[in-house]
Formats: sequence, C-alpha cells, structure tokens
Amino acid sequence: MGPHPAVAAIRLAVRRVLHDVLNRHCAQARTEPPLVLVACSGGADSMALASALAFEAPRLGVRAGGVTVDHGLQAGSDLRAAEVVLRLRSLHLDPAEAVAVRVGKEGGPEAAARDARYAALDAAAERHGAAAVLLGHTRDDQAETVLLGLARGSGTRSLSGMAATTGHLGRYRRPFLGVDRQTARTACLIQSLPVWDDPHNTDPAYTRSRLRHEGLPALEKALGKGVVEALARTAQLSRDDADALDSWAADAERTIRGAEGTLDVAGLFALPPAVRRRVLRRAVIDAGAPAGSLFARHIEEVDRLITAWRGQGALNLPGRVGVRRQGGRLVIRQG
Amino acid sequence: MGPHPAVAAIRLAVRRVLHDVLNRHCAQARTEPPLVLVACSGGADSMALASALAFEAPRLGVRAGGVTVDHGLQAGSDLRAAEVVLRLRSLHLDPAEAVAVRVGKEGGPEAAARDARYAALDAAAERHGAAAVLLGHTRDDQAETVLLGLARGSGTRSLSGMAATTGHLGRYRRPFLGVDRQTARTACLIQSLPVWDDPHNTDPAYTRSRLRHEGLPALEKALGKGVVEALARTAQLSRDDADALDSWAADAERTIRGAEGTLDVAGLFALPPAVRRRVLRRAVIDAGAPAGSLFARHIEEVDRLITAWRGQGALNLPGRVGVRRQGGRLVIRQG
Repeated sequence: MGPHPAVAAIRLAVRRVLHDVLNRHCAQARTEPPLVLVACSGGADSMALASALAFEAPRLGVRAGGVTVDHGLQAGSDLRAAEVVLRLRSLHLDPAEAVAVRVGKEGGPEAAARDARYAALDAAAERHGAAAVLLGHTRDDQAETVLLGLARGSGTRSLSGMAATTGHLGRYRRPFLGVDRQTARTACLIQSLPVWDDPHNTDPAYTRSRLRHEGLPALEKALGKGVVEALARTAQLSRDDADALDSWAADAERTIRGAEGTLDVAGLFALPPAVRRRVLRRAVIDAGAPAGSLFARHIEEVDRLITAWRGQGALNLPGRVGVRRQGGRLVIRQG
Repeated sequence: MGPHPAVAAIRLAVRRVLHDVLNRHCAQARTEPPLVLVACSGGADSMALASALAFEAPRLGVRAGGVTVDHGLQAGSDLRAAEVVLRLRSLHLDPAEAVAVRVGKEGGPEAAARDARYAALDAAAERHGAAAVLLGHTRDDQAETVLLGLARGSGTRSLSGMAATTGHLGRYRRPFLGVDRQTARTACLIQSLPVWDDPHNTDPAYTRSRLRHEGLPALEKALGKGVVEALARTAQLSRDDADALDSWAADAERTIRGAEGTLDVAGLFALPPAVRRRVLRRAVIDAGAPAGSLFARHIEEVDRLITAWRGQGALNLPGRVGVRRQGGRLVIRQG
C-alpha cells in the first residue's frame, strides 16, 4: 500500500525539483552530493515540505538540511525557532539551524520581514554551499499573489505571481506552487507532524491575511470553487506572455537605438503599443529613472511624443530624466 | 456656471466618441449627418448615456436616436419598454423605439439574453443606417468583466475585458468605460432623469450580480478602494499585450508554415513558449477544432510534441483534429 495521496503529492512535487537540481549539479561536473536546504517557519506548508525533502533526498543521493528564520517580532520567537530546529532534526535534516534577523521598517512590515528573511537565507545557503533552498509557497499563496498584483493594475508582469525558480543562479525553488494548502495540511496530519500557525496569517492588519480570509472566499462564492486554480494558471500564462513581450522589446530596442540616449521615432511608431511602451520604460530606467517611481501615466506621456506629436516640450520624469523629441529622434537623458 | 461635474464627465466621454464617429463618417466622404443610436435599458448608466448623447449630438451636427430592447423575461416588460421609449422621446431622441426579442437558452441565461439583444441592435442599426450604437458599460462593468475573465484562468486575452469599439465596422462604442457607475447615477439625479433598476442586477442567481454585490466589495475591503480602477487598467494593458502577441504569432506562423496543414518543428521550437502556444492554437482551430472546446491542456499536449519529444503517437483533439510529428514537421489535419 502506497502513502496517503496528500503525502504522495507533496513527495512527487519535491522529487521533481530534486531531479532538476541534480541535473544542474551534475552538469557542473560536481562529484560530491548536493545539499538542499528547506526554509521552514514551522507552519504546515513548510513542515510538509521539510518532511517530503527528508523522505526524498536520501533516495536520490541528495543531502538535506533546514533553516528557520527568527524574525524577532514576537516575544518568545527565539524559543519557537529552537523548537522548529528540533522538529527539523527529528526529520534527520542536517544541518538544521535557526538564524535570527533584525527586521527593519522599509517598504512596510511585510516587505521588511521578507527582505530580512531572504538575506538570512542567502547567507545560510552560502555558508553551507547549498545547491538550492526550497520555499513552501503553495498554489493558494500564488493565487493571493496574483490578486495583489491585480490590485496594482500594472499589467501582465504584475499578474505573473511567484516564479518556480528565482534568485542568484536559480537558488530558490518553490516545489508546492501546484500543491494546494489543504494538501500540505493533510500531509502534516497524516504524518503526525506538529505544526505552528503563524498569528500574522490571521491578522487583519496584513493585506495578504485579509485577502486570504475575506477577499478570496468572497470571490470563490461569487465565481465558483475553481478561482484559486484559475489564478495560479493566470500566473503561469502571464509570466510567459510578459517574458515574450520583454524579449521583443529588447530586440526592438537594439534596432531603434541611435547615439547614446536616443531612439528612432519612426521605429518606435511602427511597434505595437504594448512593445513600444516596454521599450520606452526600459530606456527611461536605463537613463536613471527609479523603476518604483515610474508609473504608467509617465510612460503614456512619453508615448504621446510619438503617437500624438504636436510640438510638446520636454518632459521631466522621476530621477531627473528628461525626454524630448528632436527631429526624428527621442532624446532621453538625465539632466 | 458650468454643469455639475458628473454631468460634465458623461458629456465629455460622449463628445470624444462622437468626434471619432464624425471623423470616420467624413473620411467616407458622406455628406448627410450621421445617425448615432443609444442602446438604453432605462437603467441609470444608459439613461445617463442617452442624456449626454441628446445634449452633445445637435452641437456636433449628429442625429441622435435610441433603442430599447424588450427581452420579454418579466411580466410587463413590454410596458416597461414603452415607458423607456417615452423617456427617450422626452430627450428629443428620434428615432426612439422598442424592439421585442425572444431569448433562447444557449450558453446560459446571461449569454442568451446578450445574443438576442445584440441581434436586435444590429438589425435596428441596419434599418436606420446608424453610424454607431452607444453602449452604457461603465468602468465598474469593465472591472467585473476582468474578474469574470480571471475566473476562466485562460490568460491575457481573457483579462482584456470589453473593447471601447467592437462589432461590424466598429459599430458599437462604449463611451463610459472610463466613467464610474456612481458618476452615471449622480448625473441622472442631477438632471432629474427617472431611472429603472433592473432586478437582474441584484439577483444572486447571476454570477455578475454576485460579483457586484459580494465579490468586488470584499476585494475592495481587502485590497483598498483602487481595485475597480486597477482592474479597468488591467483590461487595457492586457488587451494591448494580447494584440501584440497575436500579431507576433501571425507573423511567426507565416514563416514556419509548410505544405498545407504542416508547421516546421525547428521554427516552432525557436519561439518563446507564449508565442508558440498561440501559433499552435491558431493552427489547430484553422484545421477545424472548435475554439470553445479547445483548452490549455490540449495545446500543452501539442506543445510537448515539440519541447518534450520522445516518440509520442498522434494526438486526437476536439473536432476530430489529429496532430502528429513526422520528421521535422508537425502535421495538423482533420481526419
């Protein structure tokens, strides 16, 4: 008799990723077995991930370890982290360690915690020479991320959610992007793994928590049960679309780029609006505008120098980048 | 003193569309003034639209008329339609008429009513020789349409909402896609226009109604007040992106198309996944597969003949379309 379907599902998801990690490792002609770390909060998703890694790794000749990050945001978080380490050790993960970080304020509480966490995970991966770090984000997390991107209203790239592989040399892997949260919880239950529910996950002060407990359920009630799956599929399709359009824009830019900081107006005009706006955005950022301060309305103004030309003056964009039309060229320079 | 801001907003939106209709009309060297019809249910959105058309049209040398469709779905709908005609006449719209339709069952109640309505509007436009038919969809309707597309999870095109211009020769125009529902309501109130609330709009049996009264408010509560605007912006960006990718796919198809019903595998392989899947989808539909029965998983299977070739047999797709790889070619034929 095989394992429970939930346990089989989480193991299969991890096995696929380990195969890929091994293939890359061997392609680099490395002979020692690779080390794969799991980033584990002690919650159901990452405990399920840790258990699947602990089961699969030895069968594939992979070394498995775990790291938990103590964000220091609640009293007793150090004890909690120590407890998670014990749970990782009881799964025979080695190394198994806790790393304490200091969470700053920049970008709001969620972004600051995330930045501190990834810095600590990067450092741990370097210290141990890990080939990969597994993250426990599930299909439900992906759906929430798509909705958060939708709320920004900034287009296809912002709808593409989290990538299955990210970071320096593709270090971070998300094996559970196709696994739902309920499956991870069930797998923990079946395997008698104790899990810890992060109080942040139910704190309505956090946008993601409100989305999880109010926004998504209401959307499911209105649109039907398939919403989470549809959102996750949207992420993948949007990512592919955004990648294709970015590559088109990069190609187009090469053919219409003139002397430093100039673009050919006729060449820009001939592009589809979606590609032209991407070329313009790239050019303005290359000239020194900070990406985060550059909004759609800025790019639309630049676009009107091409599509609705009536002798407008120079535009002043964030980062002291000026854009003007001069003869058949767009001149984009920091001044 | 100018008009109330809400009234100014709806008039400006209609004026912009009328300018465009006039430009096209003159470009066709027509000398008689064009007729523009408004499709009016008697609800606030389309009554506001009718009032703005009635105000702007004579100032621009445009004739203005109105049509209301009696769907025959409720007792007394004929009397209701006759009342809407009186309201259109009191705005000096001429012609002003009611058209009765029979709503079928195909595609569910919402789709069937929509099909019957557009058939009747098409016929009315032909009968009167109208240059355009204005539809009262607002930014809120657009936001709902994007969410409905999101629930399908079929990618960028399904997120592109309603177009500002659609139909045969761009007959249908939606001047209010950038105007919110509240502005239309306020404009009716200010102008003392009686409006009728369609009971379907609050009937939870309808997906759109559930979305309007439960889904979107919950999403706004979780994500903030800008959600409707972000969704409408997403529609425009997604439409441009989908158009650009479709044009890329059409170009690519021309260069990799071989003898009838064959595509070059190496050419397909070199395309970005987003473009390749569009080429494959087009080719399978051209071969006779009904678009509505063709799902992402079908196209993914075809894609694997290119990206994960291990000697698979022929695939059978909806509409008896067979796809097989033969040497360096993909052979796509109805059998």
